[in-house]
Amino acid sequence: MTDLLWPGDHRAGLIFSDDAYLAAMLRVESAWLGALVESGIAPAAARADLSAAVSATDVEAVAVAAEAAGNPVPGLLDLLRERTGGEPARWLHRGLTSQDVIDTALMLCLRDALDRIDSEMRSQIKRLALLADTYRDSPMLARTLAQPALPTTVGMKFGQWLNGLLDAADCVRALPELPVQAGGATGTMAAATELSGSPVAAGDLSRQLADTLGLANSRPWHTTRSIISRAGDALVTCCDAWGHIANDVSAGSRPEIGELAEGRGGGSSTMPHKSNPVLSVLIRRAALVAPAQAAALHTASAASVDERADGGWHAEWATLRTLGRHAVVAAAQTTALLSGLTVDTDRAAANLADAGDLLGEQRAMAELTGSTARPDYSGAAGHLIDAALRRAHHLLEET
Amino acid sequence: MTDLLWPGDHRAGLIFSDDAYLAAMLRVESAWLGALVESGIAPAAARADLSAAVSATDVEAVAVAAEAAGNPVPGLLDLLRERTGGEPARWLHRGLTSQDVIDTALMLCLRDALDRIDSEMRSQIKRLALLADTYRDSPMLARTLAQPALPTTVGMKFGQWLNGLLDAADCVRALPELPVQAGGATGTMAAATELSGSPVAAGDLSRQLADTLGLANSRPWHTTRSIISRAGDALVTCCDAWGHIANDVSAGSRPEIGELAEGRGGGSSTMPHKSNPVLSVLIRRAALVAPAQAAALHTASAASVDERADGGWHAEWATLRTLGRHAVVAAAQTTALLSGLTVDTDRAAANLADAGDLLGEQRAMAELTGSTARPDYSGAAGHLIDAALRRAHHLLEET
Amino acid sequence: MTDLLWPGDHRAGLIFSDDAYLAAMLRVESAWLGALVESGIAPAAARADLSAAVSATDVEAVAVAAEAAGNPVPGLLDLLRERTGGEPARWLHRGLTSQDVIDTALMLCLRDALDRIDSEMRSQIKRLALLADTYRDSPMLARTLAQPALPTTVGMKFGQWLNGLLDAADCVRALPELPVQAGGATGTMAAATELSGSPVAAGDLSRQLADTLGLANSRPWHTTRSIISRAGDALVTCCDAWGHIANDVSAGSRPEIGELAEGRGGGSSTMPHKSNPVLSVLIRRAALVAPAQAAALHTASAASVDERADGGWHAEWATLRTLGRHAVVAAAQTTALLSGLTVDTDRAAANLADAGDLLGEQRAMAELTGSTARPDYSGAAGHLIDAALRRAHHLLEET
Amino acid sequence: MTDLLWPGDHRAGLIFSDDAYLAAMLRVESAWLGALVESGIAPAAARADLSAAVSATDVEAVAVAAEAAGNPVPGLLDLLRERTGGEPARWLHRGLTSQDVIDTALMLCLRDALDRIDSEMRSQIKRLALLADTYRDSPMLARTLAQPALPTTVGMKFGQWLNGLLDAADCVRALPELPVQAGGATGTMAAATELSGSPVAAGDLSRQLADTLGLANSRPWHTTRSIISRAGDALVTCCDAWGHIANDVSAGSRPEIGELAEGRGGGSSTMPHKSNPVLSVLIRRAALVAPAQAAALHTASAASVDERADGGWHAEWATLRTLGRHAVVAAAQTTALLSGLTVDTDRAAANLADAGDLLGEQRAMAELTGSTARPDYSGAAGHLIDAALRRAHHLLEET
Repeated sequence: MTDLLWPGDHRAGLIFSDDAYLAAMLRVESAWLGALVESGIAPAAARADLSAAVSATDVEAVAVAAEAAGNPVPGLLDLLRERTGGEPARWLHRGLTSQDVIDTALMLCLRDALDRIDSEMRSQIKRLALLADTYRDSPMLARTLAQPALPTTVGMKFGQWLNGLLDAADCVRALPELPVQAGGATGTMAAATELSGSPVAAGDLSRQLADTLGLANSRPWHTTRSIISRAGDALVTCCDAWGHIANDVSAGSRPEIGELAEGRGGGSSTMPHKSNPVLSVLIRRAALVAPAQAAALHTASAASVDERADGGWHAEWATLRTLGRHAVVAAAQTTALLSGLTVDTDRAAANLADAGDLLGEQRAMAELTGSTARPDYSGAAGHLIDAALRRAHHLLEET
Repeated sequence: MTDLLWPGDHRAGLIFSDDAYLAAMLRVESAWLGALVESGIAPAAARADLSAAVSATDVEAVAVAAEAAGNPVPGLLDLLRERTGGEPARWLHRGLTSQDVIDTALMLCLRDALDRIDSEMRSQIKRLALLADTYRDSPMLARTLAQPALPTTVGMKFGQWLNGLLDAADCVRALPELPVQAGGATGTMAAATELSGSPVAAGDLSRQLADTLGLANSRPWHTTRSIISRAGDALVTCCDAWGHIANDVSAGSRPEIGELAEGRGGGSSTMPHKSNPVLSVLIRRAALVAPAQAAALHTASAASVDERADGGWHAEWATLRTLGRHAVVAAAQTTALLSGLTVDTDRAAANLADAGDLLGEQRAMAELTGSTARPDYSGAAGHLIDAALRRAHHLLEET
Repeated sequence: MTDLLWPGDHRAGLIFSDDAYLAAMLRVESAWLGALVESGIAPAAARADLSAAVSATDVEAVAVAAEAAGNPVPGLLDLLRERTGGEPARWLHRGLTSQDVIDTALMLCLRDALDRIDSEMRSQIKRLALLADTYRDSPMLARTLAQPALPTTVGMKFGQWLNGLLDAADCVRALPELPVQAGGATGTMAAATELSGSPVAAGDLSRQLADTLGLANSRPWHTTRSIISRAGDALVTCCDAWGHIANDVSAGSRPEIGELAEGRGGGSSTMPHKSNPVLSVLIRRAALVAPAQAAALHTASAASVDERADGGWHAEWATLRTLGRHAVVAAAQTTALLSGLTVDTDRAAANLADAGDLLGEQRAMAELTGSTARPDYSGAAGHLIDAALRRAHHLLEET
Repeated sequence: MTDLLWPGDHRAGLIFSDDAYLAAMLRVESAWLGALVESGIAPAAARADLSAAVSATDVEAVAVAAEAAGNPVPGLLDLLRERTGGEPARWLHRGLTSQDVIDTALMLCLRDALDRIDSEMRSQIKRLALLADTYRDSPMLARTLAQPALPTTVGMKFGQWLNGLLDAADCVRALPELPVQAGGATGTMAAATELSGSPVAAGDLSRQLADTLGLANSRPWHTTRSIISRAGDALVTCCDAWGHIANDVSAGSRPEIGELAEGRGGGSSTMPHKSNPVLSVLIRRAALVAPAQAAALHTASAASVDERADGGWHAEWATLRTLGRHAVVAAAQTTALLSGLTVDTDRAAANLADAGDLLGEQRAMAELTGSTARPDYSGAAGHLIDAALRRAHHLLEET
């Protein structure tokens, strides 16, 4: 799967692709069928390997059929019933509603996206911890409002990027566990209760579904959609942090500044001398677009009404998918960017020197205290880098 | 092309698909090559039918290659030069930059989307004009803040929808003509001027490109991006108008109200009695999501810097594509919705009657003026319907 | 403070008002001055009660002066130095930068907003727990896609609202503790280190500032802004949950449905019979607007660059203020809405009865299992209500 | 009026302030009263100078009272009736609804904002036309993706900014004339028709209202809100264009580049050497925030339902106000920025020289055509500047 208009999209592979989503829906239906059999509600003959019944070649037909009911589940069930027949066809989807399948499959795809992002972020954090430590004493110009401010170090800049990533990772980790959805047509678990004989037994079916799929068991959340919007918020928070890095690389690799460079710059169709910070540009692109996508998830959530929303729910699916894929792509591009990043410490030192006298503040402090000014005026930079490194190591040691 | 997570997406067919975008880029390169030949800059042997050189099967390779340069043009040129060879390969893309091809191809795809929307809107306007006229005297309850307000007519409601569509159509028609982009690497037309011998001759090349493609000739707009954001604003304005209709149908088809119904309601995977206003739901979905997409285009435009932006430009492509496809889908769904819409005039009249005494305002007016109150208190509804019909006919008579 | 164009704005009182923000800046400067004195850096005579030096009458002058430096701190300092004189004037703000004061004052105002929201939410949760329990067995129609679906109970609907609020409260509680900002001009704590003699002593000053203000001590976060965007995300998540309730009340109080009503409906300037769901309308308004405001905070965060951003930082202040005030107003309005909400259980039961045969799914389940169908088909509603009540009580018992 | 958290807010003066909005509502009620008298419906004694009856000191009371009805009109009418008494009190607001007053007053305030923006833009266009002409031959480095690309001229850069402003001005001028709203309670003009005796006479009242206020007469637009969202789109399009300029100034005034500078840079609370591009920073801030505000106006418009929306309408008022004020402030700041802008042509030339060999593309062109390369390779820059100047003069000559 690729997107010609989102260069780098292939880095996300199949994550949240139509094929992956179809497979996720099959996993949900299969797991539920398994739960019905294991709980003794359905006969053993009802068990079926649904993943073989429908394949990527069916995506288009299922997608086209999806408009009639407003979601792809009924069309998928028609195909499955036709192809499996017998007891599987008879028991398939009993006790579930379309929303259960759609939402649970979204969670499975979202998990794949978050897992990939977690893995990329760990690589980034490792790399930045190394960079911050390596360049902890390399002098650099700190800039505020795009103007020279005070001396700092290259390591301090990397430490700030690192803290941004660690904050974003905290945000992802603060997400509730991704939940299963098994509330039935209106979130009362009526069909499952009917089938299983009691609310407790219906709850057990939900738990079995969750266990099979590795999701958290959950009360129904048909019209309480904060897990979707919170996931979107976490994804955009990651994009913000990557965007910050990309902004610094884009500015720092302007030749007039010349402090940073992407290892392998991108070429031009017409200008052979160019070495463009292409990864930074593409990461910035994601950071510019992601906030709007996350906002759309909130707008959708806020449109919740009745026991299933008349549009708010439907607005979430593609929006979460696109945001998820873009975030995965930006994650992978940031890993590549950091991996190839080069620092010109001579230029950094020279730019600092060229900035002229930055020590007016320092002299004012020394005058106040009667002390002798510290030579480099980089303050607590070293301590702050150490603190960031400890934070990084702490996160990396967690499983 | 379909999107499993955006039911109805197939209604947009190939519009703004990867295949269509690839074909549009080929049209741009071919038209430019033709302009070089026709103006005597390139030899006749440089002319080539590029559309045969690359096909949909190449999309994935071109997309994957696009990350290296940050856009798909250089990779596409590699393929084209390898496959055409000779003079075409020698002259291909000379005088252009990637941005020229990307932007002009976006305009070609956008035009297809706008043309389709124009056609759908004309159908909708015709249909609504008929409905407004047909039901001009059918009594109905006007509601404000979701509560009974005053008497109105069904035709007046349709007239309001019609005015909303006409306003949206005005907004689309207020767009500047879609421009060609032929500014070269930095918007100075340097290469084209070099090739052609003068700024005037370079301008002629741009004009030929525009004429061949049916776009407007234009000065370069590498970092003045309002055509993109204005197109996005027009698309979302259409979605707003369709969303308004869908809101009314969704509310009016609640059985407790029962005034409106989609001709063919959607079913449910589990509840056989359901007749869901599926088209309304899917149209509402688009209206919930579109504002954020248009906002992202402004954020991208506002990130313009230097002579080509470092991310703002790249953020536009997929955003405009997705918004464009969603708008086309919503357009087609609204046409279908209006085409099948049924009105229960008895329920409308009964709901009005059940609302009790709504005429306190009327009595206050009559008391003030000493007049005899008008019997139906629908005010200028008939006149306003007539005005909307005149507006509709005026628009429909334009080519 | 009021906003004529945001009815209900007065409910937020002074929270995040200009007056409150000015006072918060004074608290930050005073607390820092106190820390300098207590740590032995400044003489005892430097301590001053700044809150008396500047008052609400100075807001306009400080605001007007703010443009010159791009933020209100330098202008405020000029006033303070002029009015306090002597040692306080000499030591005021030493070791801090404008960003320290702006950011820490934002956190103080944000805390007031979050505290108020927490208090309102606790009231709402108590009220909804009571309502869910009271109406646990009252039959009601569950609706999906605005159409009749299955039987449920009024208590189950309230339980869903309750779960939405509990989820939002979880989101607020998942926020990191609000941090102090004391990084100095470029986040290296250079001036504080210079003043205090060591990074450790500079860290102690930051800790003293945090302790005095009741905020969390923190490393500098000049360009790692996720605390701002995460707070915005939490605020909008609350608005989403309130909006869901308001949507249901607005729809449910349509007279044709007639199940819910605001205790004191709003009147009309012209229609004496009207009883409008005004609080619902105003809450929905906030839910429509809030997602965009939170998105702007992400856009601002993603614009972080260098050691202080050239616009991204400045974009946060008013955006967070407005979102914060709107959220507080919506919180208070939701408390009022729930407090006055009335339920017409007869209409709810009648609407369910009028919806006709909803039990096709149930019969299919009974046929599959050979069981006798459960009489009410409300499934696990009672169990789910109990679970929501337990969750509510758990939250309410936390301090 | 000022906003402590939006430095520069005072530049907007009273535009769209609470005071101005109150005055605008009074103008609408007065004009309507005048129309009733002039058309012979109300007696001459009903005429009253309402502007004297309520003043800025009443804003807070009117604002607090606004929650009860969901809008400030009923509370304002209570005050007016109490203070005017007699015939004016008896005839006041007869035939209007709250929405008529709110919407028409919004248009009056919007007009003031647009007029101010038009005036600022004319100043900017004049200034940029001068700058583009003055620096038409000053060599400068064109940059793409933040990297050196080709030679250009300083005038060409100013010409691009100018084209961006002219495009934005086109967008503002493409707005429909701002309309009056006089549809009565549900947009049928029922009360006005009742009062005046006929739909035609009701239309005459609307026309008189429009004429008195200098607005366009209009059919009612209670639930067709594109004028609001289109105005928002035009405002954000202006902010995009100003943001582009600010981005270039912020980047170009980095001392390592040193080509551009704000005449009067902003200082720092702690760093005496700083000369910050404060206006650029504050303009960028607006450009970062405005897209979200315009998006909220679309979300509100798309929530139109029934004959007056239950929240969508209410969401527009403060959103349009804030966007309008921010845009006015950004307009004034951009005028100031351009007025004081300085260019270092030596640095611009030196940066171009330092960029090394940029002429690979040129040599390739010359090789293809066998021509002698043009010496400066700035292509059609001069012609493009001339075209921009013609466009500017054309706009400035329009009234």
